Order: sequence, then structure tokens, then C-alpha cells
Amino acid sequence: MKTILVVGIGTGSPEHMTIAAIDALNRADVLFVPDKGADKVALADLRHAIIARFVTGQPRQIAYDVPRRDAAHPDYGQGVDDWHDALGRIFSDLIAEIPADGTGAFLVWGDPGLYDSTLRILERVETPHAVTVIPGITAIQALTAAHGIALNRIGEPVLVTTGRQLGPVDTDTIVMLDGRLAFRNADPDLQIFWGAYLGSPDQILLSGRLGDVAEQIVTTRAQARARHGWIMDTYLLRKSR
Amino acid sequence: MKTILVVGIGTGSPEHMTIAAIDALNRADVLFVPDKGADKVALADLRHAIIARFVTGQPRQIAYDVPRRDAAHPDYGQGVDDWHDALGRIFSDLIAEIPADGTGAFLVWGDPGLYDSTLRILERVETPHAVTVIPGITAIQALTAAHGIALNRIGEPVLVTTGRQLGPVDTDTIVMLDGRLAFRNADPDLQIFWGAYLGSPDQILLSGRLGDVAEQIVTTRAQARARHGWIMDTYLLRKSR
Ligand SMILES: C[S@@+](CC[C@H](N)C(=O)[O-])C[C@H]1O[C@@H](n2cnc3c(N)ncnc32)[C@H](O)[C@@H]1O
Ligand SMILES: C[S@@+](CC[C@H](N)C(=O)[O-])C[C@H]1O[C@@H](n2cnc3c(N)ncnc32)[C@H](O)[C@@H]1O
Repeated sequence: MKTILVVGIGTGSPEHMTIAAIDALNRADVLFVPDKGADKVALADLRHAIIARFVTGQPRQIAYDVPRRDAAHPDYGQGVDDWHDALGRIFSDLIAEIPADGTGAFLVWGDPGLYDSTLRILERVETPHAVTVIPGITAIQALTAAHGIALNRIGEPVLVTTGRQLGPVDTDTIVMLDGRLAFRNADPDLQIFWGAYLGSPDQILLSGRLGDVAEQIVTTRAQARARHGWIMDTYLLRKSR
Repeated sequence: MKTILVVGIGTGSPEHMTIAAIDALNRADVLFVPDKGADKVALADLRHAIIARFVTGQPRQIAYDVPRRDAAHPDYGQGVDDWHDALGRIFSDLIAEIPADGTGAFLVWGDPGLYDSTLRILERVETPHAVTVIPGITAIQALTAAHGIALNRIGEPVLVTTGRQLGPVDTDTIVMLDGRLAFRNADPDLQIFWGAYLGSPDQILLSGRLGDVAEQIVTTRAQARARHGWIMDTYLLRKSR
């Protein structure tokens, strides 16, 4: 049977790589390196830098294009489903390239368990295969480490959600995948800890009372996005005591 | 000024160590190694194994005893506060051992941002110091990686909470710090993904419909705890579709 390693590579710094992730990349016969097109070329660059720095053998590298999700699809769930179908066909072709009883590795941004579809797409692949997941540093840890703060208050819960799903903040909340800048509609008395390009040399951090810093975040974000051609940002909303 | 590195070391496997964490330990003049007493000796052992494997120089190592929190304190918050006070005094003494303008490192289980008090205790230390946090793999990533599952459903939120705070499960929920086995009171139709000693050779995994596996988890947990003298477990509760 073929083995698929789903390897978390961290969120922007090659230094986020764990020993287990390095070992996994070195165990693979084939490395699958996604290439999301020009706007996310920096992410592909980081993957190549990681391979160049940590992979000592000469595994075959296969780059593949990630199709775009139809973000305008009227039914969000169906749009994602169609996208996963298309990716499932691509993954099947990739897995066909693994030698018999060999090992292929996917390099996954952050941790493969957090807002990532690799595991779900692999479920659609019919070729028999065994999956091993290697955990990685997520944008959540990168955010709290960069701000030097704890994620949770003492013994208190934390909600992890998306910009799309952000509602009234009763619990301290991490927001990811927020292209719509949902924080603008949140209670101005919340505290925000915001970070973009976390872990990388381009990292930007802003924090304060939401009402005081929201505009600055909007402007900083727009400028950075224009400069880089893309942005990834995450933030924590916390109730003031 | 003295520099304090708060280094996430992962949750049970030396292979969880990141390159940044290894570099941090090698940058320190002094390593502070907590020793929680006989019952958690395995955790101290892992810390020593990590130092032996990854630290190439000869930094000074200072072991310190972590006082017990008064779990019977009628006021939970006050009990934690007293405990942090006691730890604050211990940390002040430790930091006094760092040479002038030198660097000391705390080895923190998992990630320093997740249900860990090191950062909060450092705030109580009056000696001027700069803090740098190195993110680590948390029990959450170790759990989902071991089960080969995604933490979240597509685009859906996840709540991270403690056994103490677990209420009715409306959102997929990670439960940590659960000595009271709070899952026994949850809806039996939930799915549970449970893991103990995650990342370590002793790792145990159980999953299924909560009503079907709850008793098995209770028994397995009690037996493992008796065998090891301690247990750390984490679980995900997920609504069936
Ligand atoms: C598709 S999710 C992938 C998350 C990833 N698997 C993880 O573990 O962090 C992408 C979202 O993660 C967050 N993110 C990932 N990397 C980031 C970074 N370096 N800085 C800020 N946010 C980041 C952003 O919220 C982004 O919209
Ligand atoms: C004080 S918290 C520390 C959490 C840690 N900072 C982290 O990032 O995972 C301790 C709790 O973490 C969880 N935990 C930590 N290590 C674990 C492991 N190896 N296996 C299962 N649960 C673990 C358990 O829920 C335990 O009660």
C-alpha cells in the first residue's frame, strides 16, 4: 500500500518546522508542492526554501496547481464540495506517481487539522492508501507567541472561528479566514490582537482597544496586501475586564 | 536587560521540537527545568531527554519545584492567584540566576499560549526583563494528527474549553484539563475523539459514538492512570451529522 504523509510545515517561518516534519519529508519518495498561482507565490517560495534547507536526499518533487474555489457560488457548501471534487481528481493523479509501496508527502501550511482541506480531499481518493499526519505550528500559536500573550484567560474557553461565522463575542475568539474584515462590526470595547504574515520577516502586529485601532488595521492591511499581492491575517478578540 | 525565552517543547514527543525551539535552548545561558514531583516525573524525564538530544553547549540547568495549587480552595480564582504568587517568587529567584544581560529559557509543555501560566507568572516578576515566546505543538494538534482528522468541519467554528467549563455542546468542542470526566454528562449521540499521552510511545486513542465508548474511556483512563501514576488526556466532541 502507498503511504501519504500529511506534513504540517508551520505558518511562515522555516524555523517552525518540527523534527518530525523534517524526518517525514526525508522519508518520502515524492514531495507534492502546491502552487496557488502568482498571488501566493511567496507561499510556494517558503515551501521550496524548506525543502532546500531540510531535505537531504533527492526525492522527486511534483508541483501542482490548486484550482480556485468558486467563491461566488450561491451555495457555500456546494462550492466547497465542487472544489474538493476537482482537487480529489488532482490528488488521485498525484498519488498515482508514488512508486508501489512508496511514500508521498504533502506540505501543508500550518497544521493539517486547522482549516485545511487536505485530509478531507484524501478521503475522496479511491486508490488504497494509509495516511499519517504530522502536526504543525498553527497561525493561532504564531499569533499569541508574537504578541507574547496567552490565548486563553485562566481556565476560560476560547472560540476559533472564521470571518464568515463571527457573531457577537461572548467568549474570547480567534478569527481566521477573514477576507471581509468582520472585526469592523464587533463591539469597539473589545481588545484585539492582530497579526499578518505571522512567523515571517514581513510579520505585522497591531493591538489595542478595537474601537481605537480598527481603522489602523484596515489601512495597514490594505497597504500590505497591495505591496505583497496577498495577505494572511489572524486575530484574537478578547473582552476587557 | 535579561532575556527570558518561553519555549514551547510540544506535548510528549521530542520530535515535536521545532527548529526555533532548539535554537532557543541553545541560545540560553540557563535552562529552567520544572519538576512537578514524583507523579509527573515522566514529564521531567522528557524535558531532560530533549536537552540531552538537542542542546549542544553546556548551559547551566536549574531544576525547580512547582508548588501544588490548592485545588480545594473554595474560590477557584483566588486559589490560582495564590499559586501564581508563590510561583512568581520562585521565578524571581530563578531569574536572579541569569547572568547580567544573559538569557534564561523556560521549557513549557505544548504551546506557552494554551492553558499555561508561565507568561502570566512572568508578569509578576519585578526584575526588568524581555520575554520572547517560541510557539510549540499543542495537545490539540497532537490529538487531531493522531486520529488523522480535521479539528473543524468545513468553515465551522471550534470551542476550546476545560472539563470544568464544559456545557451543552452546540459547537464542536475540544476539552482539556478534565479531571472530572465531564464527557460522561454530555449528549451520548455526540462523537468523541479521545487521546491520552499524545505524541508519546504510551499514546492511547479511542473514538466513536460517545454513548458507546464513554465507559471504555473511563476504564482505560483509570487503568492507564494507575499504571503511570498520572495521565494527560484531551478530546474532541463533535455533533454527528
Ligand atoms: C486555510 S487557513 C489555514 C490555516 C493553517 N492550516 C494553520 O494551521 O494556521 C488560512 C488562514 O490561516 C491564517 N493564517 C495562516 N498563516 C498565517 C500567517 N502566517 N499569518 C497570519 N495568519 C495566517 C489566516 O487567517 C488565513 O486566512
Ligand atoms: C496545563 S494544560 C497544558 C496544555 C499545553 N500548554 C498544550 O499546549 O497542549 C494540560 C492539559 O493539556 C492536555 N495535554 C497536554 N499534553 C497532553 C498529551 N500529551 N496528551 C493528552 N493531553 C495532553 C491535557 O488536557 C492536560 O490536562
